[in-house]
Amino acid sequence: MEKIMNTNYRSVNENSSVFDAVKIMNENRLYGLIVKDNEGKDVGLISERSIIKRFIPRNKKPDEVQIKYVMRKPIPKVPSSYDVRDAAAYLSENGLERCAVVDSTGKVVGIITLTDLSRYLSRASIVDVLLSHRTKDYKHLCPKCGVGVLVPVYDQKGEIKVFRCSNPACDYEE
Amino acid sequence: MEKIMNTNYRSVNENSSVFDAVKIMNENRLYGLIVKDNEGKDVGLISERSIIKRFIPRNKKPDEVQIKYVMRKPIPKVPSSYDVRDAAAYLSENGLERCAVVDSTGKVVGIITLTDLSRYLSRASIVDVLLSHRTKDYKHLCPKCGVGVLVPVYDQKGEIKVFRCSNPACDYEE
Repeated sequence: MEKIMNTNYRSVNENSSVFDAVKIMNENRLYGLIVKDNEGKDVGLISERSIIKRFIPRNKKPDEVQIKYVMRKPIPKVPSSYDVRDAAAYLSENGLERCAVVDSTGKVVGIITLTDLSRYLSRASIVDVLLSHRTKDYKHLCPKCGVGVLVPVYDQKGEIKVFRCSNPACDYEE
Repeated sequence: MEKIMNTNYRSVNENSSVFDAVKIMNENRLYGLIVKDNEGKDVGLISERSIIKRFIPRNKKPDEVQIKYVMRKPIPKVPSSYDVRDAAAYLSENGLERCAVVDSTGKVVGIITLTDLSRYLSRASIVDVLLSHRTKDYKHLCPKCGVGVLVPVYDQKGEIKVFRCSNPACDYEE
């Protein structure tokens, strides 16, 4: 995985706005960024798809919404010891186009994408893996109970007002 | 191309908001939509990438910006008579992940994506084609002079105030 992954990734703080994160994406032609908390811990991943799914439906200005409410979390990741097929399976099963690669201590050391992996897969696998990205959705696990998934709650206009935990025993919202 | 393309595409009116277009995308898991004007003419294509590139940097609410200012235009398209390799070359040269397929009268009959095409390409071509999407940018030709391309003009905060034609002899802005 070390040879394939992109080690030239960029990070943003989870309190940065969508506006600032997209500026970094556009200026560097990087369409996925690692998100860190104030202690420098890797806490999530922001991508084009997460902005389309979790930011636009809130109907707010990009500088009004912090990345922590939009990012994929917990951070989708594979160990650097995974082989190409394991990593492709992980992305495919989770409906992801990219994820972090972590070393044995859990530290992010790179980002891997379907495009990177497609160099090393058979033709049949490439197609399976690429198509999975269209049909599956990444599930946001509740950071409080760890059991439910975060589901959007809409108002009459169709705007997302809040994401709520699907576990009836949990009251988490964001 | 008829066999490969997705004929189950959706359209939006160019005066629809980004908010409404993304609602259609998310509900249908379609990440590209054909854009029509009030006469029903196909005038553009909206995608995740165009929203990241041309909407977020304006720093407005999604229901405040019309799709016509964000979409790729003129509509990127290939004739249905193209073979797979020609279509892949067109997408690759223009930094596109998808484009419209038009019949001999110019009418849109489907949408084709890199993923669709990858089923039919050699492994080497797949990688070339997929990687092109990361490194190239789609150029928005000026709809007034047809010579310049639309380039963003930023204010001090880094927000896009307007897109202006690069041709010094043309005064088009949007």
